[in-house]
Amino acid sequence: MLRTRGDVMNYQQFFEDAVDQLHRERRYRVFADIERIVGRFPVATWHRSAKETREITIWCSNDYLGMGQHPKVIAAMTEAAQGMGTGAGGTRNISGTNHPLVELETELADLHGKEAGLVFTSGYVSNATGIATIAKLLPNCLILSDALNHASMIEGVRHSGCEKQIFRHNDVAHLEELLKAQPLERAKLIAFESVYSMDGDIAPIAEIVALAKRYDAMTYIDEVHAVGMYGARGGGITECEGLATEIDVIEGTLGKAFGAMGGYITGSRALIDAVRSYAPGFIFTTALPPSVAAAACASIRHLKSSHAEREGQQRQAQRAKDVLRAAGLPVMDSVTHIVPVLVGNAELCKKASDRLLERHGIYIQPINYPTVPRGTERLRITPSPFHDNAMIEVLKDALLETWEALGITSQTSSQAA
Amino acid sequence: MLRTRGDVMNYQQFFEDAVDQLHRERRYRVFADIERIVGRFPVATWHRSAKETREITIWCSNDYLGMGQHPKVIAAMTEAAQGMGTGAGGTRNISGTNHPLVELETELADLHGKEAGLVFTSGYVSNATGIATIAKLLPNCLILSDALNHASMIEGVRHSGCEKQIFRHNDVAHLEELLKAQPLERAKLIAFESVYSMDGDIAPIAEIVALAKRYDAMTYIDEVHAVGMYGARGGGITECEGLATEIDVIEGTLGKAFGAMGGYITGSRALIDAVRSYAPGFIFTTALPPSVAAAACASIRHLKSSHAEREGQQRQAQRAKDVLRAAGLPVMDSVTHIVPVLVGNAELCKKASDRLLERHGIYIQPINYPTVPRGTERLRITPSPFHDNAMIEVLKDALLETWEALGITSQTSSQAA
Repeated sequence: MLRTRGDVMNYQQFFEDAVDQLHRERRYRVFADIERIVGRFPVATWHRSAKETREITIWCSNDYLGMGQHPKVIAAMTEAAQGMGTGAGGTRNISGTNHPLVELETELADLHGKEAGLVFTSGYVSNATGIATIAKLLPNCLILSDALNHASMIEGVRHSGCEKQIFRHNDVAHLEELLKAQPLERAKLIAFESVYSMDGDIAPIAEIVALAKRYDAMTYIDEVHAVGMYGARGGGITECEGLATEIDVIEGTLGKAFGAMGGYITGSRALIDAVRSYAPGFIFTTALPPSVAAAACASIRHLKSSHAEREGQQRQAQRAKDVLRAAGLPVMDSVTHIVPVLVGNAELCKKASDRLLERHGIYIQPINYPTVPRGTERLRITPSPFHDNAMIEVLKDALLETWEALGITSQTSSQAA
Repeated sequence: MLRTRGDVMNYQQFFEDAVDQLHRERRYRVFADIERIVGRFPVATWHRSAKETREITIWCSNDYLGMGQHPKVIAAMTEAAQGMGTGAGGTRNISGTNHPLVELETELADLHGKEAGLVFTSGYVSNATGIATIAKLLPNCLILSDALNHASMIEGVRHSGCEKQIFRHNDVAHLEELLKAQPLERAKLIAFESVYSMDGDIAPIAEIVALAKRYDAMTYIDEVHAVGMYGARGGGITECEGLATEIDVIEGTLGKAFGAMGGYITGSRALIDAVRSYAPGFIFTTALPPSVAAAACASIRHLKSSHAEREGQQRQAQRAKDVLRAAGLPVMDSVTHIVPVLVGNAELCKKASDRLLERHGIYIQPINYPTVPRGTERLRITPSPFHDNAMIEVLKDALLETWEALGITSQTSSQAA
């Protein structure tokens, strides 16, 4: 691997080497080129190559409730685009604050019973810049972060420059141990998620809130895999458990169950005003287009009163778990809408995914390291209200055929682990 | 300012104090709530309060060419929304790669004569995560960064964790001095912008490229305030000057002249593949919706062959400079479409902006510290092809009235500085 030409650098080689390493580790990712079909979700067109398209069924979308194809949401987007145009035209401060975005922030504050909301260009940015900014505004803040927090939260913690301590996943005893070791008067921020999206488990929110009160810590919860889907109005697990008012900051996304794009935080007026004023990742970026804000707003409003989508999702997710388990497939424990099926080996996981797509027209992306620990590679299935019983049967048969053909057994998993 | 209640923290107080500090320094920002009107840009509706709306003229939009209201662009957005839905439904890797996004990346690579393109959720993210990832993939990389680089580039440099050296703005002698002091075989990345948006000046790209070759450095240029507007096909200043192939990475935005949302980088296939595979801010975020990608794509395609928008913008920007200068207003030097008018005092700048909006229905956001150095506070005016001659006359009269009423003189500026 020639990295220098004479005495100068061969820059290109470093990038080629970096990609080669992923190939060697079987971690190179190929993105499936998908064209969704409104009215037929989860059916979509797969652009297999420039010349060939095939019809497939998506089983791994985070458009969890199919709201991305809801007529009200599409109408809101198209009407805003036709009336106000396709872009915001500036940062929030410099002509980019559009009226649908203002309405969206009011809607979000109401959704979580908070004084104010603030929209970012993505959930990733809301965590990365939100956590960093909040922690920096507190003197000598210690961040206590769940071990399985999402990459965006880890980035927020890192960018804050604050001291951090990791508590074992969902382990309140460990969290208490760490809190107890600190002076009561030290600023502390507990950052965690409600639903962890790869395992589908739920944080012990009430116990974390109790600890936060006992040891005087602030709480920041990521509800991206819960908003729209849990709670009587789609306010997430915190609404479900009546804990929204006990949490200082509730973060969420507009790009998953709400079917649009963008992220947000909600909290007290002063906190939101401070983040709005001090966060570079919020200040120096073009605002969300009015069409995207209007779509998100329509979706949130619909899900505040409609329960059909939530009920349909829960029903079909439960059915998928039952049918796959009954067929002997290794469905991992999950108390939510997420249905992870263990493969336990990176190469087999990729092969299973490829075979499902090529042979069965079923699209489930493999989830490998570093998204999940090695040895726990899996297919992560996300049934929506639109994945009907017949589709679940087809899925089961395809998985069984694949497991058989590739020789995936509990053996291959445990060997790999 | 009571920050503790007994022996515990009063978290709320820290956020209130942070906001109070901005009020004291006259840096507290109020976002104007704007509703653009398709077909009438730059005229818009200002939501002055929940009860009152007024018609205003926007003079500070970064929708530089008015493409956000172009019929082709709106049609592309609405058709994609109606056909494919309102959201991408996942990260690029997990079902989020939609066909319009794939087409957009091909279009962008072609725009800049590069092998490949990669779209991010914003220009901010493309710089922050692009620069950080590229620099990290090189061993012991030194980043040489222009002193006036945008906040997003600074964040990218910081997140790379690499050593950085700042060269004086557009000062090639200083840049050479820094390069010369390094071993030839050390990895070096020069990061700079083509058009600096607050002053409207242009980097000496040819000289920087020559230095990069002499001292074997990579080059990364931010063209966000140039793409769509300069070059025969809208490829930016690098196209204009025939230097696109000499630059390693060209970064741009879809949220300004292209009238949509999102950011991107273009470069060699290996570099793009490496960033695609290693950048957390790219990997772990929901993809751009098909509707936004389709809108951006339509806009880029249109501007590759249509010159009317670029010519109209240049003509009206020059006319605005001429008319304001002839009226004795302190138009700052700018060789581009940006027309900065010096106020030189934060409070007067804010007052001028408020008066223009309230009294004249003219919306120009004040640009104060930290966006520009103290003493150089300004009104930053961005004429588009749709700001006609009559509007420029109205603007001139309004500025004269405001300068007179507030007593803004070259004296107040220099006193403040």
